[in-house]
Amino acid sequence: MQTIRVDTPSARYDVFAGSGLLETLAPRIERVVGRLPRRVFVVTSPEIWALWGHCLQQTFAEAPVVLFLPAGEKHKTMASVEKLARQMALAGADRGSLLIAFGGGIVGDVGGFLAAIYMRGIAYVQAPTTFLAQVDSSVGGKTGVNLAEGKNLVGSFHHPLAVFADIGVLGTLPDRELRAGLMESVKAGIVRDRALVRFLEEHANEVQGRDAKALEKVIAASIRMKAGVVSLDERESGLRMILNLGHTLGHALEAATRYKALLHGEAVGWGMVAALWLGRKRGTITARQMERLERLIDRYGPLPPVKLSAKRLVAASGSDKKHVGGVKRFVLPVGIGDAGVVEDVTPEELLGAAEYMLGRAGEAASQRVS
Amino acid sequence: MQTIRVDTPSARYDVFAGSGLLETLAPRIERVVGRLPRRVFVVTSPEIWALWGHCLQQTFAEAPVVLFLPAGEKHKTMASVEKLARQMALAGADRGSLLIAFGGGIVGDVGGFLAAIYMRGIAYVQAPTTFLAQVDSSVGGKTGVNLAEGKNLVGSFHHPLAVFADIGVLGTLPDRELRAGLMESVKAGIVRDRALVRFLEEHANEVQGRDAKALEKVIAASIRMKAGVVSLDERESGLRMILNLGHTLGHALEAATRYKALLHGEAVGWGMVAALWLGRKRGTITARQMERLERLIDRYGPLPPVKLSAKRLVAASGSDKKHVGGVKRFVLPVGIGDAGVVEDVTPEELLGAAEYMLGRAGEAASQRVS
Repeated sequence: MQTIRVDTPSARYDVFAGSGLLETLAPRIERVVGRLPRRVFVVTSPEIWALWGHCLQQTFAEAPVVLFLPAGEKHKTMASVEKLARQMALAGADRGSLLIAFGGGIVGDVGGFLAAIYMRGIAYVQAPTTFLAQVDSSVGGKTGVNLAEGKNLVGSFHHPLAVFADIGVLGTLPDRELRAGLMESVKAGIVRDRALVRFLEEHANEVQGRDAKALEKVIAASIRMKAGVVSLDERESGLRMILNLGHTLGHALEAATRYKALLHGEAVGWGMVAALWLGRKRGTITARQMERLERLIDRYGPLPPVKLSAKRLVAASGSDKKHVGGVKRFVLPVGIGDAGVVEDVTPEELLGAAEYMLGRAGEAASQRVS
Repeated sequence: MQTIRVDTPSARYDVFAGSGLLETLAPRIERVVGRLPRRVFVVTSPEIWALWGHCLQQTFAEAPVVLFLPAGEKHKTMASVEKLARQMALAGADRGSLLIAFGGGIVGDVGGFLAAIYMRGIAYVQAPTTFLAQVDSSVGGKTGVNLAEGKNLVGSFHHPLAVFADIGVLGTLPDRELRAGLMESVKAGIVRDRALVRFLEEHANEVQGRDAKALEKVIAASIRMKAGVVSLDERESGLRMILNLGHTLGHALEAATRYKALLHGEAVGWGMVAALWLGRKRGTITARQMERLERLIDRYGPLPPVKLSAKRLVAASGSDKKHVGGVKRFVLPVGIGDAGVVEDVTPEELLGAAEYMLGRAGEAASQRVS
């Protein structure tokens, strides 16, 4: 097991990554909070609960109250949060209650937001069950839900008391989800961790074969990268922006395909391809570095093919939350292991990046047909 | 005009109380935020906007986007917040946008919560238009909405950048609302400000006659009391509890009459009568002090009569948010100008306090009949 400290102006907590955490969850939480409160709530999905609920539950002397959030992005809504909050109120949740968000990214985002606003904020821990949630969404305190107008448009910054990333639960994760999640680790390496890039290159077989030691290494390194960035810039006023490498066009891609064709990590993968192109054009990476990183993305793919017009994609990128005062921000790789944010991307450059990316995504499509 | 500083670990801002603030709102906000952002949003009620919208709007070079929240507690919901958030997204609100909550307590609570969660938090100012909102709800950063299971069960702590309490707008406030709001000033005096109690006793005619100087004095003193308490205990872990004098049974009274018979301040007025009885019983106030404070409450009444059984009332008090881990907290006056929190109130005492209060409230009813 590895322990990674997150240390921001408003919170300090540990992320634990390793095997067997779930089997010992209650005592582990107790070690963090002192004594378990009278009421413990678990927000989870029916699928995860069916697979792993017993394992979690048997660690508690008194069974926690289980609240279900149906799977799927379409349930990441204010209405779901209200429904869960009402169930908590009916079950007697008070300010001293503890919530455990036990599931993938959506459960973490919704559960965290629920904890953020229930009685103006109660304590919670994250127990992420997907690779993506473990390396990305469970760390950093971002919580929230979608509006019809866009993803994550309402939410809170609300840090958990601890994060327990159990590598064992990844055993039941579908292969496609693991691959998509690994794109965030690829991103982590590109923006901040040259050694992680090398490890991912050299141990692709072990990682994709779910070797526990290799996974723990990748997950811990990815979390360490994110924890470091979040500790330096909790509110995303500067540095934290680099975590959005691949997200400008990645989000647009998800939106333009109505969140149906691609998993988030896959969209970010394609978005990184676009960012590499723009980085090359701006000279922040060399042709060799671009080639090397594209090969890495391919190695952890294949990313699903997409057919779309570049113009439509660029239009879809307009409502991205990261644009303050209408400025279009774009994260570019700087060499390997560093990144920077530019604000002066022209519409032509954006179109060029989209065309390059969609060209590659189209190739993927035609390869699949042939 | 008086300026009162709120200074908490997470925020520092000024509350301005005086006449003519609305007529100069935009430049005043500018003085606080530096430069007005590209998009300014106003959340308000149709009634307030009809009366005072022009006055506010003409201070802005570029007209702000106006979002309406219909009047009434029944609109203080997650659904309203979501609707307003969607309107903001459609109008292009981003993280740099500014929101003005312009109305009574409900507009302030909903508008503040909207600002707290829109894109995980944007800047806002409070421009409260009722006495109650000016002296109480606009100061301290508490925001939120109701669930079917109880009031203010979801929300955030989110401080405004500034509060502008314009005494001029109270000119159109219905008399009953002014009286109800004054109960919070009576409370402020009882728990923390002996001089305010005296001022309220000696200048009741001027205050109730809406003399601007008298009102400014009462409002500023009430805000100063609250700002002081909030600065010492932002998250209501201790001292801030004393602001809940009269609220345990006051909330129960509102709930038992389904928020229809009484305004919040009126319910708090009755709740304070119950708290005085319990304070007398516990010996935290003398018989003379009890009599004096009851006279003061009566002077700023009359509180509307209520007919209810004490048992039903006590049952309704069970779901109060302030009870952590099932402990029943109760705020008691300590002499005049001080208060304390007790946690060992017995069911019998609670029933006794409810019976005393309802007896007085019943007397009021029979007096009205005869």
